[in-house]
Amino acid sequence: MTDIIEPRILKGFRDFLPAAEIERRNLIEKIETSFRSFGFVPIDTPVLEYAEILLGKGGGETEKQVYRFNDHGGRDVALRFDLTVPFARFLAVHRHELNLPFKRYHIAKVWRGENTQRGRYREFTQCDFDIVGSDSPASDFEILLMMRNTLMALGVGDVTIKVNHRGLFNLFLKHIDAEEKSVEILRTVDKLAKIGSDETNKLLTEILDADRAEKILDFIKPKESFEKTLESMTEAAGGMNPFTERMQLIRRFMNETGTSVSFEIDPSITRGLDYYTGIVYETFLNALPEIGSVCSGGRYDNLAGLYSKEKLSGVGSSIGLDRLIAALESLGQIKEKSSYADVVVACIDETHAGAYQALAQKIRDAGIPCEVFLEEKKLTQQFVLAEKKGASYIIIPGKEPLTDSLTLRIIASRENRENLSPDDIIRFMQELVAKLG
Amino acid sequence: MTDIIEPRILKGFRDFLPAAEIERRNLIEKIETSFRSFGFVPIDTPVLEYAEILLGKGGGETEKQVYRFNDHGGRDVALRFDLTVPFARFLAVHRHELNLPFKRYHIAKVWRGENTQRGRYREFTQCDFDIVGSDSPASDFEILLMMRNTLMALGVGDVTIKVNHRGLFNLFLKHIDAEEKSVEILRTVDKLAKIGSDETNKLLTEILDADRAEKILDFIKPKESFEKTLESMTEAAGGMNPFTERMQLIRRFMNETGTSVSFEIDPSITRGLDYYTGIVYETFLNALPEIGSVCSGGRYDNLAGLYSKEKLSGVGSSIGLDRLIAALESLGQIKEKSSYADVVVACIDETHAGAYQALAQKIRDAGIPCEVFLEEKKLTQQFVLAEKKGASYIIIPGKEPLTDSLTLRIIASRENRENLSPDDIIRFMQELVAKLG
Repeated sequence: MTDIIEPRILKGFRDFLPAAEIERRNLIEKIETSFRSFGFVPIDTPVLEYAEILLGKGGGETEKQVYRFNDHGGRDVALRFDLTVPFARFLAVHRHELNLPFKRYHIAKVWRGENTQRGRYREFTQCDFDIVGSDSPASDFEILLMMRNTLMALGVGDVTIKVNHRGLFNLFLKHIDAEEKSVEILRTVDKLAKIGSDETNKLLTEILDADRAEKILDFIKPKESFEKTLESMTEAAGGMNPFTERMQLIRRFMNETGTSVSFEIDPSITRGLDYYTGIVYETFLNALPEIGSVCSGGRYDNLAGLYSKEKLSGVGSSIGLDRLIAALESLGQIKEKSSYADVVVACIDETHAGAYQALAQKIRDAGIPCEVFLEEKKLTQQFVLAEKKGASYIIIPGKEPLTDSLTLRIIASRENRENLSPDDIIRFMQELVAKLG
Repeated sequence: MTDIIEPRILKGFRDFLPAAEIERRNLIEKIETSFRSFGFVPIDTPVLEYAEILLGKGGGETEKQVYRFNDHGGRDVALRFDLTVPFARFLAVHRHELNLPFKRYHIAKVWRGENTQRGRYREFTQCDFDIVGSDSPASDFEILLMMRNTLMALGVGDVTIKVNHRGLFNLFLKHIDAEEKSVEILRTVDKLAKIGSDETNKLLTEILDADRAEKILDFIKPKESFEKTLESMTEAAGGMNPFTERMQLIRRFMNETGTSVSFEIDPSITRGLDYYTGIVYETFLNALPEIGSVCSGGRYDNLAGLYSKEKLSGVGSSIGLDRLIAALESLGQIKEKSSYADVVVACIDETHAGAYQALAQKIRDAGIPCEVFLEEKKLTQQFVLAEKKGASYIIIPGKEPLTDSLTLRIIASRENRENLSPDDIIRFMQELVAKLG
């Protein structure tokens, strides 16, 4: 026998065992159902791309984290570190095969060689959704409505989506003559929640001066209502302007859909990234705001600009799946299930597997997942295993396969119904399906 | 403006546009539904692993194809090239957290730097399913039944699953005193379909001699029925033996489930790979046998042997998704759909997006995906777009949002129903849902 290789997993990478994977898939399936209900369609792109393409936009930080190497053909390649850059490349290639506005989602893994000490994973899943090729406030709002409805469908309770408009912020900076420092200012303001207002004030004073730092701090403070905050921001930006009008229209859409309670305007939300140009937003769980934003994004002017001369504007958002799962765990909303099968056929005699499978197949054909236990073990052991897996019913065959000697055991109540025929069982299951609708 | 980066895709890699990705997902969802109905559960493993772990089992061929590099920490890592090796490693790590027999599936991408001239992709999806920790014929049969039922659920028509038993083959080789050459013989026989029986004869004669080559060729020729072939193989292997008994029992299971017509015994099926020790099989589409096996696998004695001293036997199979999609395309079974939304709300006035979304949301809440068009365009253009996307209905609002002036257009028949209220529309949709069941 050869030596044993130690079965290690790379730091920052994870196996998903059935219970965790079932939970992850439940979430992803709910997210997809919601996306699809809005008419969004899935795409997929390669995990591996030319490094030049993925890093074209990347600064130093990204470049340090990306998994990059030379392939067999000597090509300089890298694993994608997000889904936005591949989407921009995708748009540049396929622009003329798509119907605009193009509403797509992409749920897939990405890789970053981050410092795992901070509890970050090096392999994680992103759920991006975007509308490309529409400048309308209606598309800004559709993304907001999808964020709200999708998250609420996941069982995390109510959410608060904090929105802001980059254009309004820039207008204000122009008004106080601080335009040329806008990138630094936005990045500083973006850290407010992390570093607090004193430190932000200090940093802004260093960038500008005490007077304008004060003005910025006042600007970014939300007032008592969406409307009041927008009013105050508008005034600070020099009066009525197209960005305010746009935000007012979006606010009307919120009211008309009865969703306004889920939205706040927060002028401190800037989303540090340079490519946002319009509305920006972050989403917090009312029951667990401290875990940070679980869904963020905004409007951009020119997503595929690195790869194409054609301008494509859009608006999009991304759900942080790992953070959401952590939240659901904190909220006690994770129901550990390690199987999809509601019904199990116990094994009394291994040589009757054909009869057991024939019975199980009729139950499956009625739309009910049904597992067949394959090995003769003590019945009590089989009961324990069925319960562990999360099944609701066990069918216990008699010694003779599938005569009228079947027993149906209801796991929750430990109740047994005896002397049933295969037809009785199937009828029982069909009634169950009808009841569950 | 910076220079444009040419948006190239790596050779052997693909983008999936919505219509293709929807089709791929439909297939995967059907496969998963079938797997789950048998009580199989999903797992996931990292895309990236230590090269030593992935290549422990690999011969020269695999090693040349694998994407391998040093990460930031100087670790020798590689992208997985199949789902079997990571599963073996997974079992070695998590053995004691799993309930045996463990029935798992894993549908995920793998990467091989293969020669793309042969029409192969370097990034492709595998669908593996296995039962680990059970030696019973019942588990051999369960995998066979799942293969049959899953494939038939995909709309490819009837299938023929060709089975064989490695043990029976080895017994025969022992009987003709050719045991010590078994690996070479199995590999040669595995090529029969590709190289023809003359060439196989020649190669076998080189390995052994003309007499035994003849015997092998006779052994691997199927007779007129499953039973006759098994009988003839048994005789050639020196008479009754446990492998024949096992195959007889599995044949009985096929009869008892009414599935025997889907199975043949074919003694030439050997599955070249060394790790198979029991039953082996390949699956062919009756309507398109020439594309080769779409689902293959077998029983192995000691899957995790490289990483653990504990022996874990099992039986499993893998569906070739790309080949299946090619088959469905050849069979004209691909329904191009570029959206999941059955209903579209046309856009008459962009500033009414709130009212349109409120209406759409009620339709979504009834379980019907409903897209809202976001931009004012000519109605005829909107009709064309809705039809392109595969929608069945368009709701055309009036100038005033959501009064009684809605029109419902049935796309297939070009029929319009006019003067409907939002409630009329919702009632119509609910009736539709009830009808569709």
